[in-house]
Amino acid sequence: MKKFEEKTIRSNPIFQGKIINVQVDEVVLPDGNTSKREIVRHPGAVAIIAVTKDGKIVMVEQYRKALERSLVEIPAGKLEPGEDPAVTAERELEEETGYRTKHMEYITSFYTSPGFADEIIHLYYAEQLEKVENPLDGDDDEFVELYEITLEEALQFICDKRIHDAKTVFAVQFMQLLGQKQS
Amino acid sequence: MKKFEEKTIRSNPIFQGKIINVQVDEVVLPDGNTSKREIVRHPGAVAIIAVTKDGKIVMVEQYRKALERSLVEIPAGKLEPGEDPAVTAERELEEETGYRTKHMEYITSFYTSPGFADEIIHLYYAEQLEKVENPLDGDDDEFVELYEITLEEALQFICDKRIHDAKTVFAVQFMQLLGQKQS
Repeated sequence: MKKFEEKTIRSNPIFQGKIINVQVDEVVLPDGNTSKREIVRHPGAVAIIAVTKDGKIVMVEQYRKALERSLVEIPAGKLEPGEDPAVTAERELEEETGYRTKHMEYITSFYTSPGFADEIIHLYYAEQLEKVENPLDGDDDEFVELYEITLEEALQFICDKRIHDAKTVFAVQFMQLLGQKQS
Repeated sequence: MKKFEEKTIRSNPIFQGKIINVQVDEVVLPDGNTSKREIVRHPGAVAIIAVTKDGKIVMVEQYRKALERSLVEIPAGKLEPGEDPAVTAERELEEETGYRTKHMEYITSFYTSPGFADEIIHLYYAEQLEKVENPLDGDDDEFVELYEITLEEALQFICDKRIHDAKTVFAVQFMQLLGQKQS
């Protein structure tokens, strides 16, 4: 048995959406009592820390309906079923930024909201970016603006809360750490 | 008008849970077309990077039903309605770890999953921890195991995927950066 495992008595499907599914599981707790767990299923995603040849970080601004505001974020996108995250990362980089590279490496993965969702983000680092002449099209319902910003500008964007999501704050910190290692 | 704003035509409530609410909004995109946005509402949370007097990071292992496994995470907890996050941070530190401190400072905040959820985590740094004799009780349905680990152990936990969520990976990176600034 896994540590503190919560065995499912019954799983109640609530909602099947285009992006998320929602269910409520009735579980037995380690002390024998029962409880309910509200769970959001998500296909997972990739995100890319993409650095231009002049050392700037590529960012994408887009409207986030859940927050009723736009955010500046590193390029990211959802996994297609069964797709290798490295393939998704290459596709999303091209679709969202018009860049390709032969120098993409995997950094780490993390769950974003383990308390209620199974979304995982696989994070990649890309450099030596090359502009594509006719890049792949993105999703029809995505409107984005591109930025290429320095690390100092990115830190200012965090202060201004224009950068304000976990993967992008992590990415900026990653670049800070990389800079310190190299200096 | 906000950049790339998506005006709501209709908001359809799907689910009202104990922790999350789910809705589907029909929106008008910037090009005049319409689309649907699946949105999870969450009360928000705090998380605490808590460092003991001998320089170890306090971690909590608990079962995460959405992932069907346990994770090692920094202490965290949901906001009560209208509650000042600094108050939540003090309470959750005591409930989950049995520690109190007069030395807690705010670091930053971030949205965890802006693509579909409005959950925000407010992150605090706590040091000079003091053990409380009779700490506040935690939630009835939470079963946790405490660890106090070094930064090197935390990095190993990331390699082993025992630490595998955004806020905790961010916290470990924060401690790395702090260590480099101090050295």
